[in-house]
Amino acid sequence: MKYYNYETFKNDTNKLLLLLREHDFEAIVTVARGGFTLAHAVSQGLNIRDVQSIRTELYDKDKKREKIKLFQKCDFRNLKRVLLLDDISDSGETLSAVMGYLKEEFKEIEFKSATLFYKKTSMYEPDFWINEVDDWIDFFWERDFLEDKTIS
Amino acid sequence: MKYYNYETFKNDTNKLLLLLREHDFEAIVTVARGGFTLAHAVSQGLNIRDVQSIRTELYDKDKKREKIKLFQKCDFRNLKRVLLLDDISDSGETLSAVMGYLKEEFKEIEFKSATLFYKKTSMYEPDFWINEVDDWIDFFWERDFLEDKTIS
Repeated sequence: MKYYNYETFKNDTNKLLLLLREHDFEAIVTVARGGFTLAHAVSQGLNIRDVQSIRTELYDKDKKREKIKLFQKCDFRNLKRVLLLDDISDSGETLSAVMGYLKEEFKEIEFKSATLFYKKTSMYEPDFWINEVDDWIDFFWERDFLEDKTIS
Repeated sequence: MKYYNYETFKNDTNKLLLLLREHDFEAIVTVARGGFTLAHAVSQGLNIRDVQSIRTELYDKDKKREKIKLFQKCDFRNLKRVLLLDDISDSGETLSAVMGYLKEEFKEIEFKSATLFYKKTSMYEPDFWINEVDDWIDFFWERDFLEDKTIS
């Protein structure tokens, strides 16, 4: 497990921005909680003020397999291109479910997805990603705010 | 104007977490875009998975003064304590409007607010804040992802 620090995030996000700039996205939607820091940075980098979030919960539908339920639906009006952001496409189930909802609910909008990390075993490959990874990532936002953290 | 870097943010957010831990918040709501990075960090620090966002827009109602319109309303069910997060209470108009909406819409929920920065001239004082400030803050998320940023 590798610690993913802010400086590396900054460089990766700026690389991602180079891929995203030409696409004229008008709004960003991200998945709570993992995508929030990236969505903030990308919204600044692309100068997009319309940033929305979706929350997902896993639940056992029939005790055989987990299903994903979505909360806080989006509100896009008269938009053409919207960017879906998350930190990682790990199993890919969340991004696949969210993208499915977005495309079904807003048929007139073109959605593209972007992540910092992509696992080859993921069932969903984002349109844009920066790093391919096999291992678990220890993101700075998961490490730096734990209860036993010393405050300098 | 002072550059507010990630390390300082990390320390300030951990100080804020010390104030917030005892309050047993069940959900977080934040304001796009400014509160997103803080909301991500605090949600990890407090182990809160329910993170939602509100988007605001300023508009001229009668060309005399600006009004604030809210988008992407929240969805809180059976909750008792919810934390509203933003980076700064500057004029205080946004936080005042959002808190007004939350208290009106969810009368049974106790809302508290927290920010990293508070301006004495703000019309709204958050329940919890870390730094008092007179000047403009150059947050790292507003600086580090600009188009002319060199990628190392």
